Amino acid sequence: MESTRSRLTQRLAEAGQSHLLQFWDELTPEQQAEMTSDLEAMDFQEINRFFRSAMEVSGSSKQEKMDARMEPVPREVLGSVTRDRDCLKDWEEEGLRCISQSRVAVLLLAGGQGTRLGVSYPKGMYDVGLPSHKTLFQIQAERILRLQQLAEQRHGTKCFIPWYIMTSGRTMESTKEFFLRHSYFGLGKDNVIFFQQGMLPAMDYNGKIILESKAKLAMAPDGNGGLYRALGTQGIVEDMEQRGIGFIHVYCVDNILVKVADPAFVGFCVQKGGDCGAKVVEKTNPTEAVGVVCKVDGYYQVVEYSEISLATAEERSADGRLMFNAGNVANHFFTLPFLRDIVQTFEPQLQHHVAQKKIPYVDIQGRLIKPDKPNGIKMEKFVFDIFQFSKTFVVYEVLREDEFSPLKNADSQDGKDTPTTTKHALMSLHHRWVLNAGGHFIDENGTRVPAIPREPTKPLLPYASFSFRHSLKDGTDLPIKCEISPLVSYGGEGLEGLVRGQEFRPTLVIDKSGAHELVKNGV
Amino acid sequence: MESTRSRLTQRLAEAGQSHLLQFWDELTPEQQAEMTSDLEAMDFQEINRFFRSAMEVSGSSKQEKMDARMEPVPREVLGSVTRDRDCLKDWEEEGLRCISQSRVAVLLLAGGQGTRLGVSYPKGMYDVGLPSHKTLFQIQAERILRLQQLAEQRHGTKCFIPWYIMTSGRTMESTKEFFLRHSYFGLGKDNVIFFQQGMLPAMDYNGKIILESKAKLAMAPDGNGGLYRALGTQGIVEDMEQRGIGFIHVYCVDNILVKVADPAFVGFCVQKGGDCGAKVVEKTNPTEAVGVVCKVDGYYQVVEYSEISLATAEERSADGRLMFNAGNVANHFFTLPFLRDIVQTFEPQLQHHVAQKKIPYVDIQGRLIKPDKPNGIKMEKFVFDIFQFSKTFVVYEVLREDEFSPLKNADSQDGKDTPTTTKHALMSLHHRWVLNAGGHFIDENGTRVPAIPREPTKPLLPYASFSFRHSLKDGTDLPIKCEISPLVSYGGEGLEGLVRGQEFRPTLVIDKSGAHELVKNGV
Repeated sequence: MESTRSRLTQRLAEAGQSHLLQFWDELTPEQQAEMTSDLEAMDFQEINRFFRSAMEVSGSSKQEKMDARMEPVPREVLGSVTRDRDCLKDWEEEGLRCISQSRVAVLLLAGGQGTRLGVSYPKGMYDVGLPSHKTLFQIQAERILRLQQLAEQRHGTKCFIPWYIMTSGRTMESTKEFFLRHSYFGLGKDNVIFFQQGMLPAMDYNGKIILESKAKLAMAPDGNGGLYRALGTQGIVEDMEQRGIGFIHVYCVDNILVKVADPAFVGFCVQKGGDCGAKVVEKTNPTEAVGVVCKVDGYYQVVEYSEISLATAEERSADGRLMFNAGNVANHFFTLPFLRDIVQTFEPQLQHHVAQKKIPYVDIQGRLIKPDKPNGIKMEKFVFDIFQFSKTFVVYEVLREDEFSPLKNADSQDGKDTPTTTKHALMSLHHRWVLNAGGHFIDENGTRVPAIPREPTKPLLPYASFSFRHSLKDGTDLPIKCEISPLVSYGGEGLEGLVRGQEFRPTLVIDKSGAHELVKNGV
Repeated sequence: MESTRSRLTQRLAEAGQSHLLQFWDELTPEQQAEMTSDLEAMDFQEINRFFRSAMEVSGSSKQEKMDARMEPVPREVLGSVTRDRDCLKDWEEEGLRCISQSRVAVLLLAGGQGTRLGVSYPKGMYDVGLPSHKTLFQIQAERILRLQQLAEQRHGTKCFIPWYIMTSGRTMESTKEFFLRHSYFGLGKDNVIFFQQGMLPAMDYNGKIILESKAKLAMAPDGNGGLYRALGTQGIVEDMEQRGIGFIHVYCVDNILVKVADPAFVGFCVQKGGDCGAKVVEKTNPTEAVGVVCKVDGYYQVVEYSEISLATAEERSADGRLMFNAGNVANHFFTLPFLRDIVQTFEPQLQHHVAQKKIPYVDIQGRLIKPDKPNGIKMEKFVFDIFQFSKTFVVYEVLREDEFSPLKNADSQDGKDTPTTTKHALMSLHHRWVLNAGGHFIDENGTRVPAIPREPTKPLLPYASFSFRHSLKDGTDLPIKCEISPLVSYGGEGLEGLVRGQEFRPTLVIDKSGAHELVKNGV
């Protein structure tokens, strides 16, 4: 014990991190033991190296030069659901074939907690308030189940889509427990594989690790790009190889509309021979806060919205679209060989990005300080940092209203990316599925509701201004309350028999037992 | 007096509206006198005729057949600020030339009250909370002033843009008083011409006029299409002729970004030889609640969002855009000959539209009832009803973020088209003007703020989820607080000398006395 302690003291001194033990004598034996074990596990020389190179990169004024170095995604590597509609069926067929051969896996980035959402548990466990009260995890699990079924029906072979779930130190236990309690939503324990991303300490601007209390270092997950290191250290690539996986769809937990293992996206990437692909949605407003996929110095990457000048953001192609319009939605495709190369060869070359943060810390007197300005950095890699290593990069453009509605914030006045907006996005999509399958909705008077409903009638005293009804409104309409179980339909298919020619009063719920109207339930 | 009364009784009886006098004996002499004068002024036979033909049209199931009859706007009649950028300068020159010859007028539709906005005065008098606290009327007035100045500078001739303002019975007095109190914002009393749209009674489903109290009919403005009748009855067309006006830009009061007498729009319509034109913004989401400009049975019209099926709303052209994407923003162009023909010949042929409403009424016992279902109709014409009579219709597509942000609702959780969204839209536009003129913004630490600002830094305890910073966010970013007086710049011009190479801390205000930073003012 004493030798452990002195070896640790020595290592800390060599790394210039001796201050971490400044309150040692005030700690309880338990705290001392825990801190020792935390510190023992850390490679301070490596952390210092990360810090130096991250600060170096962040210090260089790359932003100034970005504009001249950017090129848009060339049309020939782009597939678009709106511009290549003739190919969609083919791509989907290809994807379903790969799935039916059990060659497709999904990989979920779920290391984040629902902090902004105001909850302390993993986001995937959140219930946005759908009629079914399904969580994000359950919705995604059921989509996987349905997709397996579709591939099996199509090709007559039993198949599995393994689901790799990356958690962090903060979310691992509760995530595993949640899946266990729900019997893995019917997917089979063997086909849900958990692994854990790494953590890194937060550091002040001088490279000193920050203490969040006398006994504890300020630690944070190492960014969603921590994926690649974790894939290596935890034998996930080998697991994929053993299962015969060829293609991996990576996505973030917070998108309620995510098409897990999307056969059209997978099929497009496979047919195009892509080793790496990104799903994007069109950015239409120059100042929208979204990173864009583009080439920089000839290599693909995501350029963050804060890195480009207004002139570049406003540039347009001859067709009138924004030149840099490939909005990143954190949905990526990798071939296994590409992923193996990344993990084995390229990941260590990637530098961490620096995020300046306000980090609560204990000062030299041991007082907890909550700074009101950024006082240190968090180091992270991003999942898209490895695009630059792709030899055959492809981009797949989809519709935002069909595929992207992330849950980020608690409900509030501003109301962006909230439980309410995600719930509405899902119900709006399902409403459209019902209409396109030939169903109709009626109101309380039995009148058919238009596809794009009017606003509710308001009392006419005093008379409302005449200009209301014919002007553009920002964003979408009022949602019809409608939810379709993913076990019944993955992407709108298979609903005709249930809805064609029928009239429904919302709330409509369609699940494996059929179509039901719910009596008022306050959704 | 007695003969007046008996003549009125007779007229009401012939028109089946005798119930309007059912409480006559309970009224005070003042109420009787007022009611008599109201009723004397009304043509009940005409009102009944309006009712019958409006109900007839509304009863026919036109919606069912709409889809097959719709055609999109052909490319050859479309001018687009994103797709025809090479022409923009020319169009603007043409428009400025017309303005310099005093041949362009603007016509403001301002008959509505700020009911949904929660105020009882005309919307144009609303202050959305800009640093300057200018009202919508003042902003529009100052744009007119600046545009006159630009045309004069360009062509060396003094010119005027007459401003015709259509109010309603409810808004006329307060509007006039407001302009008088503000000395017509410097435009000159003679160049601001007020006129008043008509009112029509609300009716129940049997064609009986509704009493909103024992002494008062339920009246409402006759829709923004009431414009055409009012132009005739109040001699406005003649006034335009006398002033030598050739072209009229019509718009609604509630759009804070409106480019009054937009020279590029006017110039485009003139160069294309259009007798009638509509400014539109691209509809990008199929279920967005916006009317679209298109052809129906070969004639131009605006099809309301509630009239089209989802399949039609989702149709796309080969270029991937929505086929019906010309979103109406109530900004129109007319030549005076076209407008004269409308007023003199075509307006009377137009039927009223029916809007079903919940209309508070007094029942037969004289009790005030507030219905919870629609119980009657309001009849209105729409300003775009006359597109069908155009022989050379043209369409001009602009960017929503540059030109369209209507004020409709009070600030609230949902937050669409509110004082906050309109204020942000204007400040965002002015922020972009400053950047494009070579200015920069810095934060409280003196660091340059990116063109698309990051979200504010949040405390790092517990650590926020890693996926935040790289995902799409709905809508636009946080606004930089910046306001530029229209007296200084109409559309971003003329700012280089004031801002190039300079760094500003928000709030930045640029007015005729120069560029100023305001100390924290809680905007």
